[in-house]
Amino acid sequence: MTQKSLRENSDVQSEIEQTLSFIIEIEKLKNVFRKTKPVGLERYENSAEHSWHVCLSALMLKDFADEDIDVNRVIKMLLIHDLGEIDAGDTIIYQSETKENKLAEEEGVKRVLSLLPGNKLDEYLALWLEFEAGETPDSRFARAIDRVPPLLHNLNGDFHSWRKHDISKESVLGLNSRIAEGSEALWKLLENKISNEFDQGNVRR
Amino acid sequence: MTQKSLRENSDVQSEIEQTLSFIIEIEKLKNVFRKTKPVGLERYENSAEHSWHVCLSALMLKDFADEDIDVNRVIKMLLIHDLGEIDAGDTIIYQSETKENKLAEEEGVKRVLSLLPGNKLDEYLALWLEFEAGETPDSRFARAIDRVPPLLHNLNGDFHSWRKHDISKESVLGLNSRIAEGSEALWKLLENKISNEFDQGNVRR
Repeated sequence: MTQKSLRENSDVQSEIEQTLSFIIEIEKLKNVFRKTKPVGLERYENSAEHSWHVCLSALMLKDFADEDIDVNRVIKMLLIHDLGEIDAGDTIIYQSETKENKLAEEEGVKRVLSLLPGNKLDEYLALWLEFEAGETPDSRFARAIDRVPPLLHNLNGDFHSWRKHDISKESVLGLNSRIAEGSEALWKLLENKISNEFDQGNVRR
Repeated sequence: MTQKSLRENSDVQSEIEQTLSFIIEIEKLKNVFRKTKPVGLERYENSAEHSWHVCLSALMLKDFADEDIDVNRVIKMLLIHDLGEIDAGDTIIYQSETKENKLAEEEGVKRVLSLLPGNKLDEYLALWLEFEAGETPDSRFARAIDRVPPLLHNLNGDFHSWRKHDISKESVLGLNSRIAEGSEALWKLLENKISNEFDQGNVRR
């Protein structure tokens, strides 16, 4: 083995070691709890299993996106979209997100991504910022899909988080209407379901 | 609206409805428990959060694959690789997998994927079978990555599942050596860590 390949070899081992540190660090997302319970379960959902759920949801709903999207980029965004919560925690969408919370999430995602070797921090921070800004077709669709499971949790789980946090029909419809920016057909269907439940008096607040 | 576009519209709504049934059904993976505990947590890991973890691990370790891989296909494989466990449950790798268990997983993944509209059952069942067979570069890498978190859980969690199930050094090395089929450098690093812990007598059986 030449001096050069020996050095390269040791660089590779060191890069893998750094990546494993990242893989261990992100386990903490399995202990960040959200505000809704998965359908059929009595416990709150954590942000790691939520992340898997929205990735697979995006893959299966991709044909209903209104704009041309690259679902592989959408999935990558959704794989990392909650990493900032390891430091900042989860925020319910019905409370207005403060500037401080957004900043804490950005600092958190930077800290976690900076465990990675090479220029991965820059690459994935840019993807995370694109998701947060929601100004591209990929990020609009990703942000739409991110909203779907909590609605299904409520619609199929006695409206538990809407009731607990005393959320009105107008709030649910208003704050989730951004789903239409990713897929009008998807929002139309969900909007009907939500309106029906409130209009029939099923959501006892 | 023409008759044709009205019909198309109702088809779209029906396809979205079917996809939402799938999205609700797969929540059950959040209640399938594995044999190791995430680093720092006192509870067992579920297969949904595990699926997220291996997808993001594959993305960040892709540069260490020995063969040319398409990481987007690898991620799709890993997003669906455990869906059969909704019906069949999780099996520890140190118990030999029975034919019956493999068959139950295949039946399970078929049942769940058949909730989807169009030809998605065929498309994703083929991807799942490719993962199971492990005979392509993408599936070899995906199967390698699938083995990494349980090793990290043991190495960073007092070797809890190796001790509980009385697993020998030879078993750990033998059954995880398939990581080398995806990435020799990754296996070399993990193999050293595992050997050191056993050789130093840290794994008290």
